[in-house]
Amino acid sequence: MCRWMIFLGVKGVIMNKLKISKRAKEMQASPIRKLTPYAQAAKDKGRKIFHLNIGQPDIETPDIMFKAIREYKEKILAYGPSQGSADYCDSLVKYYNKLDFAIEKEHLVVTTGGSEAIIFAMLAVADPGGEIIVPEPFYTNYNGFATQAGLTIVPVLTVAENGFHLPAEEEVEKRITPHTRALMLCNPNNPTGTVYTRDEVEMMIRIAVKHRLFLISDEVYREFIYDGLKHVSVMEFPEAAQNLIVVDSISKRFSACGARLGAVISKNAELMSGIMKFAQARLCPPTLEQIGGVALHSLNENYYRKIRSEYQHRRDIVVNSLSKMPGVICKKPQGAFYVIAKLPVIDAEHYALWLLTDFDSNGETVMVAPAQGFYSTPNMGLDEVRLAYILNEKSLLRAMDVLAESLEKYKGKKEQLQAGNEMVMQA
Amino acid sequence: MCRWMIFLGVKGVIMNKLKISKRAKEMQASPIRKLTPYAQAAKDKGRKIFHLNIGQPDIETPDIMFKAIREYKEKILAYGPSQGSADYCDSLVKYYNKLDFAIEKEHLVVTTGGSEAIIFAMLAVADPGGEIIVPEPFYTNYNGFATQAGLTIVPVLTVAENGFHLPAEEEVEKRITPHTRALMLCNPNNPTGTVYTRDEVEMMIRIAVKHRLFLISDEVYREFIYDGLKHVSVMEFPEAAQNLIVVDSISKRFSACGARLGAVISKNAELMSGIMKFAQARLCPPTLEQIGGVALHSLNENYYRKIRSEYQHRRDIVVNSLSKMPGVICKKPQGAFYVIAKLPVIDAEHYALWLLTDFDSNGETVMVAPAQGFYSTPNMGLDEVRLAYILNEKSLLRAMDVLAESLEKYKGKKEQLQAGNEMVMQA
Repeated sequence: MCRWMIFLGVKGVIMNKLKISKRAKEMQASPIRKLTPYAQAAKDKGRKIFHLNIGQPDIETPDIMFKAIREYKEKILAYGPSQGSADYCDSLVKYYNKLDFAIEKEHLVVTTGGSEAIIFAMLAVADPGGEIIVPEPFYTNYNGFATQAGLTIVPVLTVAENGFHLPAEEEVEKRITPHTRALMLCNPNNPTGTVYTRDEVEMMIRIAVKHRLFLISDEVYREFIYDGLKHVSVMEFPEAAQNLIVVDSISKRFSACGARLGAVISKNAELMSGIMKFAQARLCPPTLEQIGGVALHSLNENYYRKIRSEYQHRRDIVVNSLSKMPGVICKKPQGAFYVIAKLPVIDAEHYALWLLTDFDSNGETVMVAPAQGFYSTPNMGLDEVRLAYILNEKSLLRAMDVLAESLEKYKGKKEQLQAGNEMVMQA
Repeated sequence: MCRWMIFLGVKGVIMNKLKISKRAKEMQASPIRKLTPYAQAAKDKGRKIFHLNIGQPDIETPDIMFKAIREYKEKILAYGPSQGSADYCDSLVKYYNKLDFAIEKEHLVVTTGGSEAIIFAMLAVADPGGEIIVPEPFYTNYNGFATQAGLTIVPVLTVAENGFHLPAEEEVEKRITPHTRALMLCNPNNPTGTVYTRDEVEMMIRIAVKHRLFLISDEVYREFIYDGLKHVSVMEFPEAAQNLIVVDSISKRFSACGARLGAVISKNAELMSGIMKFAQARLCPPTLEQIGGVALHSLNENYYRKIRSEYQHRRDIVVNSLSKMPGVICKKPQGAFYVIAKLPVIDAEHYALWLLTDFDSNGETVMVAPAQGFYSTPNMGLDEVRLAYILNEKSLLRAMDVLAESLEKYKGKKEQLQAGNEMVMQA
């Protein structure tokens, strides 16, 4: 024991009990990632797991990205500009212009993943105590970012019965309080796969403008739209530009989740100047990925068409399979690569755990994300799971067979296991 | 104008004036980066600028990093674990163990740059309204991160006259209030280059333990210690481990600032579990850089010895040159690669701007960081600049000549220009 410990007259760490912050304590553990240790244990036992629980596609990242990075010739991996490198910003502007959005360089800041784009947007629209209205179920990490920013997410319930479309305007408006600073919309939606209609997007913009709120539009799945539908971006509404913020990411678009490249976009100059200061404090987004990102933006419509048709095919496999499983309810979603399915179980968390700990079909099982974590209203989504259709046809077909078999086997178990549920989850 | 604008009966954006958050408004613009547009204008005029304003070394990133990345064979750039990849975590643990720190994998989370490590630490130790005591001058972006986290930085003044060493224990203790949650120490220090003694480090730990506070130790310049001194890390004090958090980064150590790889380290399990949740929300740090980072950690003591001796040589060039300039005061710093110099000017911001807009020596000039931005006490550091000695010998010698010449030329100007100062800075 060194002299200052003696000076304090303390032994060990007993007196030393420190408090961590309330936000660190209250921060929600990722419901998508919290089953991971059980999956690892199953893998250690030699089990093969079909991962339907996380949005990590098995589609290859276009090789031009790796090629561009391999050809990097600088001797120093230096800081880039806080806004993002000039080349990468230019390539983003071109990407948006091709989509007919009149975006210029000063309207965007490149972020470290879509995650940082969401954090920057939240920090810039509201102070601690502020509220953001979000249709639920919603991307579960909005909760975490809101906790970090000291904000409260106020949910507006959407339901499976009408494909998780938005409720009437009054339902949204009646949640507005003096603390509300923004609405948020993920379109196409994660976790529901819902593609909002032009009327719905207009409704959200109208509410934002009328009540002087920001509308944060998460459009990372913009290209993943099926059945010939067209995505409606808030960038199509320049009249409301002062209220609009888009958060974006290349993770899904180019199957480059590990690149951590996103962007936050707005024509509100005051807002962007605030966001630029947040960006300056953290210095810059990763340098090499931006070089690869420039190359990715050179891909043409053929690339998008190909992945769109691939994901539509996968969506069809999943929805067709689910529709044949007794007691399973799901409306066919038209975007992103997720579907929320109601299962004939009482507690989807228990079922998801059981899949990893007690079930296998010839040594194989599936991993799903219990939907409860995508709701902030208590006791919602208890019998729902989110499935990500990010595997290739063959794997997906087998995964759906395994899922069907597991539901069959779980049937008898669900009542008797119910009692032991909490005990197991706490283990 | 579309139908819902008509519905609202508004024209354009007049009614549409939205408020951004207080924190976005009050966030400090980076004093290191705010002169950048003037530097660009000078470059556009064909002027060569020696950058002494920013910690971006001209030393090459070890090629093994690029080599490892070029050899990446995966077809998908996928999400990695939120904690950091297993390989990269292992390489970090080995790095710390070689330094004799008993760090294991569960004690660390890999972050996107040292920046994210600081944000995570701040978020985890305090809630909005909390206070953190930091010796000033301090790394200016601590201000920005504190604003983001809703915290107040309470400065403890250190002065050039005694090489910016810490004041007496009472001076720190008397700043502790019921809102204080942590002390923070950057050792070796950015921007002063001060290497704290064992007594000083022990003093900070003692205060933290006695008052049940965290001590956040920023040790990114750990290897940059000169004159045969030895760095004293808080990791040498396992008895106080519950109070200690280390923030770290490979940016300077391996001249890889653009890689955005850092780490936050603590043996306080409750704290780390909170930080892990912040890490899960943002998914993962960049994947490719971690592959390069594993390679960097295979470098042996020869590498560190070489860069240490190179920077010591550069430090000597700068300090020797400064000591010959009339009216310039600076004590020889013993770590990092910065020095704070008192100049014979009334307003270092004006001088720094003048260097870019009005001065050149055969078409060349220097860029410096006015020190005011490194203080939070008003009117401190007005006649000081921070110089980063990150250029090679030849460039540095020439830069110091240019600096000396500029001070000579500025002498007559300083009184008459003083009046016009605010006008110019607002331009």
